[in-house]
Amino acid sequence: MTEPPVAILPIEPRAIQEMIDALAQFGAWGETGVSRLVYSPEWVAAQDTVAAWCAAAELEVERDAVGNVWGWLRGREPGAAIVTGSHIDSQKPGGRFDGALGVVAALAAVRAARERHGTPRRTLGVVSLCEEEASRFARTNFWGSRAATGKIAPTEADRMRAIDGPTMAEIMRDVGLDPERIPDAARDDIGAFIELHIEQGPLLEAAGVPVGVVETITGYRQYWLELRGTANHAGTTPMDQRRDPMAGAAEIIGGVIDTAHRMGRPAVTTVGRMTVEPNGRAVVPERVGFTVDARHPDEAALATLLARHEGLWAEVAERRGLDLAVRVDSDRPPCPCDPALVETLVAAADEAGVPALRMTSGAVHDAMQFASVCPVAMLFVRSRGGVSHSPEEHTSAEDAAAGVETLARTLARLAY
Amino acid sequence: MTEPPVAILPIEPRAIQEMIDALAQFGAWGETGVSRLVYSPEWVAAQDTVAAWCAAAELEVERDAVGNVWGWLRGREPGAAIVTGSHIDSQKPGGRFDGALGVVAALAAVRAARERHGTPRRTLGVVSLCEEEASRFARTNFWGSRAATGKIAPTEADRMRAIDGPTMAEIMRDVGLDPERIPDAARDDIGAFIELHIEQGPLLEAAGVPVGVVETITGYRQYWLELRGTANHAGTTPMDQRRDPMAGAAEIIGGVIDTAHRMGRPAVTTVGRMTVEPNGRAVVPERVGFTVDARHPDEAALATLLARHEGLWAEVAERRGLDLAVRVDSDRPPCPCDPALVETLVAAADEAGVPALRMTSGAVHDAMQFASVCPVAMLFVRSRGGVSHSPEEHTSAEDAAAGVETLARTLARLAY
Repeated sequence: MTEPPVAILPIEPRAIQEMIDALAQFGAWGETGVSRLVYSPEWVAAQDTVAAWCAAAELEVERDAVGNVWGWLRGREPGAAIVTGSHIDSQKPGGRFDGALGVVAALAAVRAARERHGTPRRTLGVVSLCEEEASRFARTNFWGSRAATGKIAPTEADRMRAIDGPTMAEIMRDVGLDPERIPDAARDDIGAFIELHIEQGPLLEAAGVPVGVVETITGYRQYWLELRGTANHAGTTPMDQRRDPMAGAAEIIGGVIDTAHRMGRPAVTTVGRMTVEPNGRAVVPERVGFTVDARHPDEAALATLLARHEGLWAEVAERRGLDLAVRVDSDRPPCPCDPALVETLVAAADEAGVPALRMTSGAVHDAMQFASVCPVAMLFVRSRGGVSHSPEEHTSAEDAAAGVETLARTLARLAY
Repeated sequence: MTEPPVAILPIEPRAIQEMIDALAQFGAWGETGVSRLVYSPEWVAAQDTVAAWCAAAELEVERDAVGNVWGWLRGREPGAAIVTGSHIDSQKPGGRFDGALGVVAALAAVRAARERHGTPRRTLGVVSLCEEEASRFARTNFWGSRAATGKIAPTEADRMRAIDGPTMAEIMRDVGLDPERIPDAARDDIGAFIELHIEQGPLLEAAGVPVGVVETITGYRQYWLELRGTANHAGTTPMDQRRDPMAGAAEIIGGVIDTAHRMGRPAVTTVGRMTVEPNGRAVVPERVGFTVDARHPDEAALATLLARHEGLWAEVAERRGLDLAVRVDSDRPPCPCDPALVETLVAAADEAGVPALRMTSGAVHDAMQFASVCPVAMLFVRSRGGVSHSPEEHTSAEDAAAGVETLARTLARLAY
């Protein structure tokens, strides 16, 4: 590559902020929030806007079979593209930065690279992926990036139902997409994928650093546990004769949370959802079900964490005479980022004078899906208070611009 | 009283069973269950049947302003009556014995007393109370016995909403009752109240004894606890930076259950209901709410149990930095049964050759309401497996007949 001149045509924080604010109008929720579910009218309007921005930037616009929007800046040489981007859908409500900042940053960084260096040697791509949040369908599981990497099963669109009722196939047809064509979205022209995303955690803020270079995306396993005992009258059944699944659940929940805590950072275990039957004030429950979400970016440490959890609940259920059913709903090994891409990001940040922290991602991201077809990397930008999935989510325009500057210089190093 | 001849006109188990089975047709649920909510068509049919039985037994039938059915056998002397009975409504679904057995037993015992001894000296009364289970309205709180003892507040029928929507006043009007007349149901003619009820617990079965004489009805307090923390992403928030109300709830729930367990019988503490917000698999909850139901029949021991619970959750919430809100939904001191009535029941069982256990009631009952206007007592009949509030609830015809025999001889001792 040609060494790029430093700090010419600087990234303007205000310009980034304006694009973020423009997208946030589609599905605006209150003063600062966004609720933009995949294939909703506000999602259509947001994707149309991204496509229009790409066209205005003289990128070659492509819409694929699931509604991902791609903007291509063709390189002088043939070969696989360097792609950057993120997702356009949101939680309900979420904030305006999760996903959207990665799309805006991709467009701004590709534009800056071209303004600084002209036509690239390798093709550059911007992508606005259709879905990542699973906020409209419980199990889309990265609909956009799974489609682009050829992982959607033939019958999935007919089987999958939205929380509001219709199937994925019906909802796709409503916005003019043909679910039969989903396999056409799979691509073989991506040579690297770099995703800029808000951190969604407190570590960059605590370190006083605007951006983070992700070395590994966490591995995790999500369980659904169901403990069955015997429903009994709360007044007439002595404590010593109960088979109380609530008592067992309390011991297991306290235990797994303590286990992750004692293992230390970055191990995390969360129990976020619970159902109780019959859920009566004066009835010892018959059944208590709950989720366990356990994560660690190191494969051996993850295995240790999971083994401790599984040992604990087997022991508690047996000792308490409760029937235990365990279902694994998701299971992903840690996803290491490509070491060469990581070093390029670190060097680009250094060159731009942007302090950067090497870190792991505790959240999962579209980049994990692309890891099956190409080297991937991620760049995090500081989140105020570590908050995300909430209208309170915030990233300053200055931090966002620092991220875009790092990304633009990374693209320059890779594609010129 | 005249000493009654022993074992003449014996109580026939089959006759008791037939009446139980006849009532169980109204609101039949599956093979053995009953779902008969207050003021439903099946409840109307069941109360009509009880009234018809009372009339056929030549009792003077009275229906009061809330739909309690009373059957009077007038005594030779003026003065307050000896009343026995229970409630006619059920859980949804419950079994065929809870409440209904007490109504059937009352009728059979009064009939047997008259057949054996003729017209009583004191008036005897049978009552089929309209509501006890709170299965249609969350807070009826003994609608039938509260009406009979003058405890229903003037605006309650308009304020109280059924789980299926309408107000109590609307539902009463639908079955021809005038909610304005509720105060007319209050009586001053009851001199003693004796309730026969299934045990709903395992103690009689464990002791191999068919009936129990209740010395005290448990005291209890029911709480709703709400712990608030900070909702956070399950992957990106380190364990040491969380304010996780699920972790606090698990510690409190495990703690209160262990406290009751260690205090020993008859202390009981139950957590039967829980709600979680936002209840997402990958979100540290913001709010966890749950019930705590704690009971002990001894006033001082109950106070100790409650103080330990309240101390525990205050300490856990403070240590974990969680906001704790505590609401007390019900609070009843233990209700001692009348010692003279208790001894009469014990003597009657002894005379009938029915083994009887002196015990406490861990469940609450209509008798507690009558304790504000007259001496009360309760007779328990063995429950198979201790099960109640379920179609699996069962009491053998022989045990039921042993209870009725004891009750009939008790009435003979009190009213002749």
